[in-house]
Amino acid sequence: MAGEYMDFEAQITQMKKIKERMDRIRRKILVMSGKGGVGKTTVTVNLANALVDAGRKVGVLDTDLHGPNVAKMFGVEGRLMETEDGTSLFPVEPRPGLKVVSLSFALSDSDAPVVWRGPMKLAAIKQFLADVEWGNLDYLLIDTPPGTGDEPLAVIQNLPGLTGSIIVTTAQAVAVADSRKSVTFSRRLGVPILGVVENMSGLRCPHCSHEIPIFGIGGGKLMAQDMSVPFLGRVPIEVELREAEDAGTSWVSEPAAGPSAVALREIASYIDALEDDYLEMIEAEAKKVKAEADEADKRTQEENRNGGYA
Amino acid sequence: MAGEYMDFEAQITQMKKIKERMDRIRRKILVMSGKGGVGKTTVTVNLANALVDAGRKVGVLDTDLHGPNVAKMFGVEGRLMETEDGTSLFPVEPRPGLKVVSLSFALSDSDAPVVWRGPMKLAAIKQFLADVEWGNLDYLLIDTPPGTGDEPLAVIQNLPGLTGSIIVTTAQAVAVADSRKSVTFSRRLGVPILGVVENMSGLRCPHCSHEIPIFGIGGGKLMAQDMSVPFLGRVPIEVELREAEDAGTSWVSEPAAGPSAVALREIASYIDALEDDYLEMIEAEAKKVKAEADEADKRTQEENRNGGYA
Repeated sequence: MAGEYMDFEAQITQMKKIKERMDRIRRKILVMSGKGGVGKTTVTVNLANALVDAGRKVGVLDTDLHGPNVAKMFGVEGRLMETEDGTSLFPVEPRPGLKVVSLSFALSDSDAPVVWRGPMKLAAIKQFLADVEWGNLDYLLIDTPPGTGDEPLAVIQNLPGLTGSIIVTTAQAVAVADSRKSVTFSRRLGVPILGVVENMSGLRCPHCSHEIPIFGIGGGKLMAQDMSVPFLGRVPIEVELREAEDAGTSWVSEPAAGPSAVALREIASYIDALEDDYLEMIEAEAKKVKAEADEADKRTQEENRNGGYA
Repeated sequence: MAGEYMDFEAQITQMKKIKERMDRIRRKILVMSGKGGVGKTTVTVNLANALVDAGRKVGVLDTDLHGPNVAKMFGVEGRLMETEDGTSLFPVEPRPGLKVVSLSFALSDSDAPVVWRGPMKLAAIKQFLADVEWGNLDYLLIDTPPGTGDEPLAVIQNLPGLTGSIIVTTAQAVAVADSRKSVTFSRRLGVPILGVVENMSGLRCPHCSHEIPIFGIGGGKLMAQDMSVPFLGRVPIEVELREAEDAGTSWVSEPAAGPSAVALREIASYIDALEDDYLEMIEAEAKKVKAEADEADKRTQEENRNGGYA
């Protein structure tokens, strides 16, 4: 991970490599959340499995350097990436059609904390984008840490042709408030928003079947409407889903799996059915919004320089 | 927030100011978690309220610049800090005996994401430590973002006389794996660990009273035993707790509040009853562990320099 000391020419070479790799992937989707623990990784992992079940070739890149749980949920914890020529890295394949890359594959001691500073994280993410041999994929899902910090910014600024973002929230007021920031963040950086998922949306008691609104119900949908972004659906809490995650098995692939699996499969089908025309339209719209914001920022800066606020 | 451009002399002045402020606070406790969404802020806010109920003077510093929810849970969202002389900042006081400082008090638009880079976050945290006029306090609880990144590191390296850390986890395997990293992180940096709280530990169905192990039960306690740190208790999930948070009222202060309030009050009593002798002992122990790790690192570096791995 020596990328933070790269000279100018080496950076150009790396960017060309990233472009080549990314051109072989049809759709590249960022999965974000404003707040931690809303189940962003759960959504990523289950959407990936559902897309593979539908016959798609899917890659998952886990950029959460502080808590890499993707590997655990795919049941490939402790596995190492392989290389043949010393420069390309081969993803781990938990099942046919699925390729996974996570920082945890490069960590020797799983109890060790990762005290990565911003520039090192940026270098690591760029290196992953440049050096991982994904091959041809239909989807690359990129799991980012919660919030609007270094990692999602590094992905957005260094991944050419990003299709869009999925924003995961719970209905809880504090989570909704934070996920509004993710919407604003996506917009400001010109990333089309594919939609909002309301996760952990109610729990059906396994004993008496009553619905229990642990984190509330409906807050994510209201936020999506209020901020004019598509609402992709609500995923209820299920104890069996958590157990499948801890065991590293694919919950959505279980034919008898409960309502959370049904909801996650429906979201995957919706994403997979999105027309290229629609994606081009929202991309153009997102670029326009960004250009306008850039222009407004530039004007403010010029006014400041000209003593407008002196 | 111009701290990232400070010259050497200004930094010395700032460090002296931090020392003076911190000397007036009896106990300074860092609340950490390995993974987001385990209820770290819930634990912080409720411990603070329980300590105030017990007659203590308590400050809460919210260093989570990406999702500042402390203010919302104390019911003081949108409030601004005040200054009289232009240099000291006065905390917001949600109730007598409680003082709160959060980045959200300095943000104008609550939908705006905070794309703070590492050095800016460090500068902001130092400025908060130096400029906030806490006065005399019994406790300062510092809420840090999940993980082992810039913010907890900035607090640890810039807060003299830190009493120790409380690590919050759920029983879920992925959360436990991440919180082990927080234990290792605390140890490596010489911060005494006051103990581990297992939050969201089971839910009692409000309709049929059966216990539902949503995130599992017991994983945090096992981790605490395995890593030889004190276990502070398990806090069950309650829908009413989440509703109190969304409303910004103090859950632990409700006489009729359920088992989660009882558990949180017990943890607060335990912390408040800790003897100074015990705290000095674990501080000495933590410093010893850090010195040994520093020494081992130094040896490894020297071996590398001497061509040990050449």
